[in-house]
Amino acid sequence: MKTVYFRDFDTAAHNAAYNLYRALCTCKEAGAGRLVFDCAKRYELDPAFCAERNLCISNHGYNGPHRIGVLIEQMHDFEIDFAGSTLCMMGEGTHFAILDSRNIKVRNVVLENPENMFMQVRVAAHGDGFVDVTPMNGREQFAIRRQELVCPAPRKTCNYWIETNIEFTPDGEIAYGTADHTMGNYIPEMRCEQLADGNLRFYDVRRYPPVGNILIISAARRLGAGFFLCDSSEIVCEDVTVHSCLGMGLIAQMCENIHLNRFCTVRAEGLYYSATADATHFVDCNGRVTVENCTFEGQLDDALNIHGIYTRVLAKDKNELFVREMHNDAKGIRIYHAGDRVQALHPQTLIPYTEKTVEAVEYINGDLIRLVLSEETDDIRVGDDIENISHNVELVFRRNTVKNNRARGMLIAARGKTLIEDCTFHTSGVAILFESGGAYWFESGGTEDVTIRNCLFDRCKHGGWGRGVIECVARPATEEGKYFHHCIRITENEFRMLPGDAIPAAIFDNVQTAVFTDNRMMTASGAPATVVLHHIGQAEVQPDTDLETVPEEM
Amino acid sequence: MKTVYFRDFDTAAHNAAYNLYRALCTCKEAGAGRLVFDCAKRYELDPAFCAERNLCISNHGYNGPHRIGVLIEQMHDFEIDFAGSTLCMMGEGTHFAILDSRNIKVRNVVLENPENMFMQVRVAAHGDGFVDVTPMNGREQFAIRRQELVCPAPRKTCNYWIETNIEFTPDGEIAYGTADHTMGNYIPEMRCEQLADGNLRFYDVRRYPPVGNILIISAARRLGAGFFLCDSSEIVCEDVTVHSCLGMGLIAQMCENIHLNRFCTVRAEGLYYSATADATHFVDCNGRVTVENCTFEGQLDDALNIHGIYTRVLAKDKNELFVREMHNDAKGIRIYHAGDRVQALHPQTLIPYTEKTVEAVEYINGDLIRLVLSEETDDIRVGDDIENISHNVELVFRRNTVKNNRARGMLIAARGKTLIEDCTFHTSGVAILFESGGAYWFESGGTEDVTIRNCLFDRCKHGGWGRGVIECVARPATEEGKYFHHCIRITENEFRMLPGDAIPAAIFDNVQTAVFTDNRMMTASGAPATVVLHHIGQAEVQPDTDLETVPEEM
Repeated sequence: MKTVYFRDFDTAAHNAAYNLYRALCTCKEAGAGRLVFDCAKRYELDPAFCAERNLCISNHGYNGPHRIGVLIEQMHDFEIDFAGSTLCMMGEGTHFAILDSRNIKVRNVVLENPENMFMQVRVAAHGDGFVDVTPMNGREQFAIRRQELVCPAPRKTCNYWIETNIEFTPDGEIAYGTADHTMGNYIPEMRCEQLADGNLRFYDVRRYPPVGNILIISAARRLGAGFFLCDSSEIVCEDVTVHSCLGMGLIAQMCENIHLNRFCTVRAEGLYYSATADATHFVDCNGRVTVENCTFEGQLDDALNIHGIYTRVLAKDKNELFVREMHNDAKGIRIYHAGDRVQALHPQTLIPYTEKTVEAVEYINGDLIRLVLSEETDDIRVGDDIENISHNVELVFRRNTVKNNRARGMLIAARGKTLIEDCTFHTSGVAILFESGGAYWFESGGTEDVTIRNCLFDRCKHGGWGRGVIECVARPATEEGKYFHHCIRITENEFRMLPGDAIPAAIFDNVQTAVFTDNRMMTASGAPATVVLHHIGQAEVQPDTDLETVPEEM
Repeated sequence: MKTVYFRDFDTAAHNAAYNLYRALCTCKEAGAGRLVFDCAKRYELDPAFCAERNLCISNHGYNGPHRIGVLIEQMHDFEIDFAGSTLCMMGEGTHFAILDSRNIKVRNVVLENPENMFMQVRVAAHGDGFVDVTPMNGREQFAIRRQELVCPAPRKTCNYWIETNIEFTPDGEIAYGTADHTMGNYIPEMRCEQLADGNLRFYDVRRYPPVGNILIISAARRLGAGFFLCDSSEIVCEDVTVHSCLGMGLIAQMCENIHLNRFCTVRAEGLYYSATADATHFVDCNGRVTVENCTFEGQLDDALNIHGIYTRVLAKDKNELFVREMHNDAKGIRIYHAGDRVQALHPQTLIPYTEKTVEAVEYINGDLIRLVLSEETDDIRVGDDIENISHNVELVFRRNTVKNNRARGMLIAARGKTLIEDCTFHTSGVAILFESGGAYWFESGGTEDVTIRNCLFDRCKHGGWGRGVIECVARPATEEGKYFHHCIRITENEFRMLPGDAIPAAIFDNVQTAVFTDNRMMTASGAPATVVLHHIGQAEVQPDTDLETVPEEM
């Protein structure tokens, strides 16, 4: 196996981004099996010298040219060991893109991007209707315009709205009882001025965050990702630390067999946040996704989200469907191929009513797709949703820790076997959410076989974002005797419940077989924790719980 | 020659955009020579059903996915006759893209886009420091936010700044003495409120446009074009009317032999503007561009601009140059090919000092290009500019009328023979400007052989934008005995000069041979019109002018 050494490219004649680009070109041209770094160094990557591809990154919302620090495209049987080096992207860019490749391994690397669109501030004082905050970081990206805090950087053609803020205690936990907008108002609606001492004063405050708490003010638009994997298989990422990046830590779409080992989102010194969005995210994948031995802390969205994509039938001909990628963040994602099996289903129940085979696919534009079926379309209704059921990803998520991040722990919508074990969750929102949506997010998949075992759920759902520690989101409508989820087993876990006993340990909804057994339940009051059942085929629930059965709607 | 009839696709089962898309696919698959429309109809094109390609449109500034109404890609010997039909693009989209094609003819079509980013208002009243205006059109795209007029549409992720406004008299001329920002202030700096009667009131006014005048308030970002031609040859557009489009009427880059006949920008009923930007624009073309029998009225930039692109040397190796596309609007434009001859020149004088041959080209990203030369780079200085001199476009511009548009008539930087004859100009800025820039716009080329004859220049330069009726822009530095332009001949034209005699008829600058003869000069006062000479090799100027020779700088 030919090995290329980065030291042969790491010269002062050019900058780090170009040296890396050239080393990768050489690896590809020479069919090298390995690119090796000698020692841990810090490389500042100037996007002006990075590769570029037109990318459609799911759930990021910015299609078009993206600068890429490490481009692995149409390569196979290739490994990079960065020896612990830091890749610091100095502007708009995606650290890694692995495109149309197979058997790729990336090891020992740290990701940073100082040019994210956050400001970190500390609450300094309160007054009547106002809060003063001290900028700690990110101030240079923001500006006050007509008494409104805006983010003109990194793209100068417009002023980005501030989308939200979230709040940490000085210890780094999400402040209890909070979610987004912790001053009780949208920041673009709040007057802002800079005081003589450099502090910012927000007016029109409706909730006063405690003095000393930390606010992360976000204008982030997910202009890039840490790792973007597309149309690739047999991918291993090992010993990766994401301190910061412009979007998700890792997002994989239409990939097969991905293994993350010790892939961590970790706060950099002095910062309360790590990745801009989800730590990991898998869209329309196949084979198996394995995530193990990871810590996901401080990322500003879920630790893991796995799902397919529903498209909607706009029109049909005799054996043709015109379907649309409905959510802006799904545009340009090419999920259909000839030979795929698809189901049609009602957007509210998400229960399929017919199944067809795709004979040919035409991508007319980023969200309109023409599917030629091998059967007639008589029984498919315009306005219903289509799911590609040829994608059935298995998920193994074990020995991971999820804590102190915005939003949820995991969002599970994987059609393959799902195992979550030996993990610790300390999440402000729901720890494990079974979510799909046929009407807004259009993230698909009912689960078939889920086991959650031997995990610790430590005071989860202490902030907003959901209703229970583990929760199935209810569908707007159900069908008698039919269930969106097949089997969910929650067994042998430890639940340390929040004081107040208000949060259910589990909410099963729309499940054929619901199992909640042999869990160790710890409540502050000693009263039993609640388990909720709604539209369930059969249930087995341990006796030391307060079982709440929600009646079916008429 | 196989003919396809659009009537076979123009069914109610699908919408117009899709019908057109399908008809074009059929033409391409069947190798048809013609697509024919039976009669003039109005087609509203929903961008959701249009084709899409990742486009880098020069001088538009928005790279990435573009929706396209009529996509002609990798086709040859093909003609469409629209029979006078109107293609109305109902949102963000480019009406026509002709990509990598040859021998294509488009005839008899009208272009509209109601979703441009303009508001047309009439000045209703003045007060102390304020002006009241009555919205006539476009109001629904705009919003007042914190007392600032902004344009959140068509992309909702940010508020677009208002870039400028321009001013027309009720008769449709650009108001005399005006250019951009006719209230003497930038609109984003002016407080704006909506009055009870629906009018808008602007405060912080420093110039009061006359009551009754029309202001075009622009947030336009050139999100698409009327016609985009790229890497194509032998293109004819005939009997085309552009009422409105999101960018230029027609922009061609890296094309060869383009013929526009009766290609007109025309104001739609009730509107004072037509195309958003230049009527026509040619970048790095070859062969001949012929523009004849056209009227260019109301477009919000020049009638024609023709130029190449300078890139800048960022770094070099023994026989390699790393050059950058410097202007944001030039990113992604692929102007170099193996075998091209290039010159290096100083950014201030634009006088070449060495010439090389390109052996190989690598496009690293949208603005960084590696050129492998067949010679060494010793004599090329980092920081200097590179011009591709293998592109030498000829220009014939005859029997055209240019009037009542923002900015200039023509911007000429074509290295090939240039003939402008039998035209009428009534432009608010310079009628014909010889402009290149090695430091901001990076639009290249010195001219070789220009003839301007038998044209009428009717009260040109009555607004801002330049200094003379015909003008060569001065370089920041010159080189003794060397000239940026070779020969410019202005002969047998009629100049109807503005009252006041302040505007020179011609400013020759940096020209080897300057000729100004046999022109009919008409001034209001009867005094001779001025001709200015600066850094000229030899000059021949008719005697009935006031010759002003600017001394060379020391």
